[in-house]
Amino acid sequence: MNDVDSGVIKSNRIVFPDGIKSGYLLIQDGKICGFEPHFSSQYIDRSEQIIMPGFVDIHVHGWGRGSFAYKGNQSSLKWMSHDLVNVGVTSYLPTFGTMPNDFLEASLMATADYIATATVTDGAEAIGIHMEGPYISEKHLGMQRADCLQRPSIASFERFNQLAGHHIRLMTLAPELEGALEVIRHLRAQGITVSAGHTDATFAEITAAIEAGLNHFTHAYSGMRGFYHRELGVVGALMYYQDTYAEVAKQSGITIKPEAFDLLYRLKRDRRMVLMSDCMGYVDFPEDYEFYHYLRKETFCIKQGLLEIAADDRDTRQVCPCDYETVKHLEMNFLDSVKNIVGRLDHGLVSVARIACENPAFLAGAADRKGALSPGKDADILVLDDDLNLLDVYCRGRRQKQLFED
Amino acid sequence: MNDVDSGVIKSNRIVFPDGIKSGYLLIQDGKICGFEPHFSSQYIDRSEQIIMPGFVDIHVHGWGRGSFAYKGNQSSLKWMSHDLVNVGVTSYLPTFGTMPNDFLEASLMATADYIATATVTDGAEAIGIHMEGPYISEKHLGMQRADCLQRPSIASFERFNQLAGHHIRLMTLAPELEGALEVIRHLRAQGITVSAGHTDATFAEITAAIEAGLNHFTHAYSGMRGFYHRELGVVGALMYYQDTYAEVAKQSGITIKPEAFDLLYRLKRDRRMVLMSDCMGYVDFPEDYEFYHYLRKETFCIKQGLLEIAADDRDTRQVCPCDYETVKHLEMNFLDSVKNIVGRLDHGLVSVARIACENPAFLAGAADRKGALSPGKDADILVLDDDLNLLDVYCRGRRQKQLFED
Repeated sequence: MNDVDSGVIKSNRIVFPDGIKSGYLLIQDGKICGFEPHFSSQYIDRSEQIIMPGFVDIHVHGWGRGSFAYKGNQSSLKWMSHDLVNVGVTSYLPTFGTMPNDFLEASLMATADYIATATVTDGAEAIGIHMEGPYISEKHLGMQRADCLQRPSIASFERFNQLAGHHIRLMTLAPELEGALEVIRHLRAQGITVSAGHTDATFAEITAAIEAGLNHFTHAYSGMRGFYHRELGVVGALMYYQDTYAEVAKQSGITIKPEAFDLLYRLKRDRRMVLMSDCMGYVDFPEDYEFYHYLRKETFCIKQGLLEIAADDRDTRQVCPCDYETVKHLEMNFLDSVKNIVGRLDHGLVSVARIACENPAFLAGAADRKGALSPGKDADILVLDDDLNLLDVYCRGRRQKQLFED
Repeated sequence: MNDVDSGVIKSNRIVFPDGIKSGYLLIQDGKICGFEPHFSSQYIDRSEQIIMPGFVDIHVHGWGRGSFAYKGNQSSLKWMSHDLVNVGVTSYLPTFGTMPNDFLEASLMATADYIATATVTDGAEAIGIHMEGPYISEKHLGMQRADCLQRPSIASFERFNQLAGHHIRLMTLAPELEGALEVIRHLRAQGITVSAGHTDATFAEITAAIEAGLNHFTHAYSGMRGFYHRELGVVGALMYYQDTYAEVAKQSGITIKPEAFDLLYRLKRDRRMVLMSDCMGYVDFPEDYEFYHYLRKETFCIKQGLLEIAADDRDTRQVCPCDYETVKHLEMNFLDSVKNIVGRLDHGLVSVARIACENPAFLAGAADRKGALSPGKDADILVLDDDLNLLDVYCRGRRQKQLFED
């Protein structure tokens, strides 16, 4: 099977946001140009497989052999683009952590350069930047660094975005911080999505932020003021405001309980739920940088080129960054998250096409190009078997060979 | 307008659980016997008023000039029955607090005697007993007494119910206590409703209790382990389990925020939401008994026959128990709660007929007689104007005159 820069794919199960259909997907110059129930000329026959849009990961710090948030260079982005394809992600927002300002600035420039030069053969497309911080609350740091917090200001944001070649698409911040509301309004005026995360805001403060333009919640439930019936907090606000989006990661039982996912899904449904990975890419951490994961209760550190994982209650083990087969199991990936939850959704893969493709593409400001197999959009296509194993991935019509190399 | 022990009421707006209809309500021997769109004989013309079933209050410690939970005698029940009619309640479960065992036992006997002897002229009908405790958790006492907790046991419950003439209909308990699951199964086998309240149970413990038969949550959100996404607690369980009922009181902003009500209602809808009052009836407290309300930040105490209300931050004031016009404003009543929330419900008064009448009647084990204007049920009827002011109340067909006396 070859590239389908231009061509036709036939399948009995093509997943669209409004349902699964049988027919022929028409592709021209790397873009979807139509869907036909009947077609008489040459086509690639995937009749027995599932065809669906590639996943859009709007919250991913690193994956596989690239750890952008901690390395901040183009090499880590190259590895992420390369390895994300293996887990069904065809576009993503490289996601910053709250790091020292000079590191952020260098990372922003590196991303701008990478976006300007990356090609379709590099794999998953970096479609912009998600900054998680540095305008966040010291009260809900999670795994963010307390020494790197900044006060929100339009001037500082503008400097960030200029260094980023104006590629910032999503900003996670704490709306209760002084100056945050002005920043929210400023970002929304430019079409940048603003999300509440790592925040101690009250319900009233979130309400004011929503009026200013905030419409998303970063890793719902985690890193935010919890629910209480006399002060609903951030969790109450994300449950209450039906038009806001909320993202969740890794349905492994580590971050949130399955029932907590179900409850949120019942309130958001396909319309406003978003799936992301929040992956880290541990093997590409800087040498000797110690990262303690307080939920996994493990310390990750690269020592002389090898990743050492020191568990609080188990023996330390080592992983070679070159050993992708091991690397890919270090954290739950996007595709495995999808497999975990698809049975809990209202409409199976059609729901997945909403919460893992269409909704995140919208929040990333890329709804015109990504997130659905509709005419005019990029031919970012997954070919899956009945167990949702990945058989093929196309990025903008180009068949991705790394799926078979690693 | 007279009694309608037998008779016909005409109205353009008669509220049924499935909608508002125009027509004639037929009553015979104090019971609803039918509804007809057309009727040619004599009738009481209430065309311009709203006709709906009387409210069923399953959680009311006292009201007006009767404070049963603290007085425990028949006189307090007489006053409650008399004054509840004034706020639209036509049947109720006298609700016990967690009090000394001998007080509970005397109260249970008094209730059994009262139920056996009360007549239709007494007003609202006591249709059974709600015991809030004494099998509750010391960790979520709210306004219950720490020195009166008991361990759940079938033997102790059986003694209570025997003294009560087998009138216990609803039991609020903490399902995590040793022995609670056996008690839950025992109660359910007798058709008694079991509700989680004043409980520190985990999500798993509530799950086990639901499997044992628990299907209700007492004053939702309050007096229970809160929601957290890695341990959903009691609040998470009541939100998650869609088939369980949940009751809320007084939408005054004191106990829960309106948005917390909305959120719960969105999860329960008319099907599983229950409105109750949780009123106290302060002026009938025993002499010199000091009751501190930690939310209102006021201490209530009867001194030489007068109620003294000592606020933490205001002057002390006195209320004469005989002054019903003042007494009725001491706490938010059932009808005012209905007025507060009717605009937030899916179907206005039809929703009210579900959550304030039909659902609580079911939980009280009185669905055969109470909660709707359907054939065979008691003619417990409210006549309301457009602003939901009470114009008339019928209890089992008998027009209640106290509405005009006080």
